[in-house]
Amino acid sequence: MGMTMSEKILAKASCQPSVKAGDIVWAQVDIALMHDLLGPWLVDGGFKRLGGKLYDKEKVVIVSDHCTPPATVQQADILKFTRDWAKEQDLSYYYEFEGPCHQVIAEHGHVRPGRVILGTDSHTCMAGGLGAFATGIGSTEMIGVLLTGETWLKVPETIKIVWEGELPEGVYAKDMVLKTIKDLGHAGATYQALEFSGSAIQNLSIDERLVLSNMAVEAGAKTGLIEPDEKVMEYLRARGVTDDIEFFKSDEDAEYIRTLHYNASELEPQVACPHEVDNVHPVSSVQGVKVDQVYLGSCTNGRINDLRIAAKILKGKKIAKGIRCLVVPASQHIWMQASKEGILDILTEAGCIVNMPSCGACGGFTSGVIGAGEVVMSSSNRNFRGRMGSPKGEVYLGSPASVAATALEGKITDPRKYLLEGVL
Amino acid sequence: MGMTMSEKILAKASCQPSVKAGDIVWAQVDIALMHDLLGPWLVDGGFKRLGGKLYDKEKVVIVSDHCTPPATVQQADILKFTRDWAKEQDLSYYYEFEGPCHQVIAEHGHVRPGRVILGTDSHTCMAGGLGAFATGIGSTEMIGVLLTGETWLKVPETIKIVWEGELPEGVYAKDMVLKTIKDLGHAGATYQALEFSGSAIQNLSIDERLVLSNMAVEAGAKTGLIEPDEKVMEYLRARGVTDDIEFFKSDEDAEYIRTLHYNASELEPQVACPHEVDNVHPVSSVQGVKVDQVYLGSCTNGRINDLRIAAKILKGKKIAKGIRCLVVPASQHIWMQASKEGILDILTEAGCIVNMPSCGACGGFTSGVIGAGEVVMSSSNRNFRGRMGSPKGEVYLGSPASVAATALEGKITDPRKYLLEGVL
Repeated sequence: MGMTMSEKILAKASCQPSVKAGDIVWAQVDIALMHDLLGPWLVDGGFKRLGGKLYDKEKVVIVSDHCTPPATVQQADILKFTRDWAKEQDLSYYYEFEGPCHQVIAEHGHVRPGRVILGTDSHTCMAGGLGAFATGIGSTEMIGVLLTGETWLKVPETIKIVWEGELPEGVYAKDMVLKTIKDLGHAGATYQALEFSGSAIQNLSIDERLVLSNMAVEAGAKTGLIEPDEKVMEYLRARGVTDDIEFFKSDEDAEYIRTLHYNASELEPQVACPHEVDNVHPVSSVQGVKVDQVYLGSCTNGRINDLRIAAKILKGKKIAKGIRCLVVPASQHIWMQASKEGILDILTEAGCIVNMPSCGACGGFTSGVIGAGEVVMSSSNRNFRGRMGSPKGEVYLGSPASVAATALEGKITDPRKYLLEGVL
Repeated sequence: MGMTMSEKILAKASCQPSVKAGDIVWAQVDIALMHDLLGPWLVDGGFKRLGGKLYDKEKVVIVSDHCTPPATVQQADILKFTRDWAKEQDLSYYYEFEGPCHQVIAEHGHVRPGRVILGTDSHTCMAGGLGAFATGIGSTEMIGVLLTGETWLKVPETIKIVWEGELPEGVYAKDMVLKTIKDLGHAGATYQALEFSGSAIQNLSIDERLVLSNMAVEAGAKTGLIEPDEKVMEYLRARGVTDDIEFFKSDEDAEYIRTLHYNASELEPQVACPHEVDNVHPVSSVQGVKVDQVYLGSCTNGRINDLRIAAKILKGKKIAKGIRCLVVPASQHIWMQASKEGILDILTEAGCIVNMPSCGACGGFTSGVIGAGEVVMSSSNRNFRGRMGSPKGEVYLGSPASVAATALEGKITDPRKYLLEGVL
């Protein structure tokens, strides 16, 4: 019997020739990721009481992204604690004010195929888009990882998600993953891995693949993997990673607990409606819902290709009166690239506001929190009650194209209206 | 006996041929300015109980700038209340996400020579730089203004601040006003007007003049006036104001309670040290103080000329490791202009973070609040204990040039080092 990607990576990480779904293994952790909000200020006490010696200061990466820029003294104090802790521990890799951790660790070459990456954030699974076994863990669990460099994991079963065919214009990875989550349910893949495959997945750029893996956890999945290929190598080389990289691919006779098949060419833009990520409907059935705020950003959909799509739709036009459109590039690197490409000029000319990279508005704790009765259309990954601020607010999720089209009309709008002449 | 600018404007506003310092007058209010934090959600109850009818919806201007972007649900709720109130009252002028109110009302042509402008913010006095009698009032007092369009004012005595001579390279209006405040003391001009005059003032651009008038209140002054001239007309014309504008100038025999004389050519860069704006020292005596954060922005010093100066100093260099430099243009208009001029690219290449226009970090309630033990060098206007966040933090104030030079070294630095080869 062959092995899945997850099984192969966890076999390697636990120094065994093979493992199978259901096995409990002790896995060596290649990257232990923490951010400010669920990092040092929470783990420090336990970590110090248990000796306070890091397993490997090269493998612990901290990205301060939740409390940047600080909106309260408490956030500022947490940020300072995190910064000081990174210094005290002499970490090789500490980043702040660069953007959400998942994007930052990918950009800086920490994410590589076959690595085991554990982070104190649920969207750590994004790294699966580059072929890593990556998942979120609690801060208490992280203490053990920091001290020993290992943790126990149950080898997950894998659900295979096959997307064949060509995506139509105006339809993106975000629409694919929303449709997938709808079918799986928000807890439909609990403690299982997703593996995205098929020609439609192979055709996606790395930026788009990361959308799929980022949202794997929204179906409850432990991680969301995509088989690495030459595009991944190119992505890594562009970020200075030139080591021999081992690609882990599922065997042809690997065992899947379930397989879902999709035809990408039949997909239309999808929208997740309040208050669950699996409450997904085609945009045609929710268009017209009035919004107060539009949010283009986050680690899910704030990359350069997302900003380019939005710029294409918004160029030379104005967003609807009375709403605000907040643009938050997923990293400082992307911010600067978008600026150089003239994208930020196009977006601000259209009436958008560009903010610094941060988890703020997406998580509802700074830089764009919503109030009672307010409705948001967002390119981010979660729409739970209260996620972006008031529990009396409502969050709809869609692709950057859907978000941009919605900004133009002030109500949820099919982006194909602005991308395809005469189609709608 | 001749009249001062303040006396002339208040005579006109109270429909009298002349008034003199000490008189109590009922003045007609040309612009009643409110912002979100001290606006509708505070005045609404009293306003409605007293009839709830605005004296003139063309003269009430609201700029939401303190709760943008909202960092908390309360801020989001205040912002929504403000927006809804402006709509309910059918106001002709409501702005949000455009930047600090004082800059926004100047850019949109609401500030004109001879106008009486009352606002629920202490830095309303900035409008004096364009020749308006402008001052801050409390929200309760504002209720009366909203209902009647008038308020009582004691005609202030005037202190004449004369700056002659030419400013040396690396020395700016911010240094002039800090030096002036040092000499007056932070309460040295309470209920008096400042009138800035002399050749050094005439030579200043409007952007620089606004720095002086903005900070008049830091000496306790009711307002800070500068005699309008052709530069003011040009500024207004560029913003679409083409009406006949009446210039009010002090008579030669006007009476001043006090006159201070300065020679601009002898001034060196000044720094206000914690925790009072009048605790001012030449940069040479405080250089070397280590900082954690540098803040380039605010209604005081976030205009295009300020950003240009910073870009000149930072171009091709990198800010010090371990600190952050937050750049917050004073308005969305300035943000866009700076982007087009390539200034934002220069600043981000140097390691700065560019945020959206807002009062956030300057006032310590969002987008860059400091924690306990942190030290900031800021181009803003106040350094009271706790102003930018933790009461255990420290704020130093200086010009944008001093701020930029400090960003390069991570400690307070004389900007002339980077502007004048071989001088220091």
